[in-house]
Amino acid sequence: MTSEDLFAVTALNSWKLVVGRFDQSLAQLTDEQLQKQIAPGKNRLFYLVGHLTAVHDRMIPMLGIGERLHPELDETYIISPDKALPDPISAADLKKVWIEVNTRLTTAFETFRAADWLQRHEAVSEEDFAKDPSRNRLAVVLSRTNHLSFHSGQAVLAK
Amino acid sequence: MTSEDLFAVTALNSWKLVVGRFDQSLAQLTDEQLQKQIAPGKNRLFYLVGHLTAVHDRMIPMLGIGERLHPELDETYIISPDKALPDPISAADLKKVWIEVNTRLTTAFETFRAADWLQRHEAVSEEDFAKDPSRNRLAVVLSRTNHLSFHSGQAVLAK
Repeated sequence: MTSEDLFAVTALNSWKLVVGRFDQSLAQLTDEQLQKQIAPGKNRLFYLVGHLTAVHDRMIPMLGIGERLHPELDETYIISPDKALPDPISAADLKKVWIEVNTRLTTAFETFRAADWLQRHEAVSEEDFAKDPSRNRLAVVLSRTNHLSFHSGQAVLAK
Repeated sequence: MTSEDLFAVTALNSWKLVVGRFDQSLAQLTDEQLQKQIAPGKNRLFYLVGHLTAVHDRMIPMLGIGERLHPELDETYIISPDKALPDPISAADLKKVWIEVNTRLTTAFETFRAADWLQRHEAVSEEDFAKDPSRNRLAVVLSRTNHLSFHSGQAVLAK
């Protein structure tokens, strides 16, 4: 394995580890537990999972992998705060969609060669990317992995 | 910049971003706020900062950078749960030590060349590393960055 490939594998392992832990926690949550708030007056677990699913779904076009699978989640879980709108999806379906979106991403990441990770993502202009080539796909995946860790820390408090 | 260097820079940016955000939040916290719990019955912010500082201090020998700066924090903030022992450090000193430890780490990381990131860390045996070269320094830094994000998500709830 080349050094470049090893960098890519190490970063991908980090994504898979954090997503995998969240998969496991989510699978164990009952519908009732998903309605609990992470702390008094804070977001429900359900909202948090909807939010993470929508944010990850947005990564699909952002990383040039394909079309979004579930843009219908944005209005409730990105644009609006918790409880502003009724949940447009059941708990069972949300769990399925979380897996579907992340499987789509991880499957694509596993086909990436080292050079693919260092390509521009769609949210940065060619001009800005020329100035700062660290604004690449890898940066997006590391950022989203940290975002998931951030909310995972909150999710465990609801237990 | 070579591809390898770009991988290293992108990962280091992720570490610096997450640590930098935590630095800013911590600087704004009063002594009184640091005594607040992140949620009812959960860890105090003070404990959480002590825990993160001790965990990061442990990275110094683990990554072959040098000797630990503050091993005296382990008993209270790694081995024991919150409030089992009195805080052995003032809020002002804890804030200073957090900065000191992370400056030590980041300064060393900035001298790492791409190949340095892919070297074995001290917590994995040579035998295990030969089998799985992704157990390198980069993996430790990505893991600790996610650990910090995890607790950052909890820390914001105390506000």
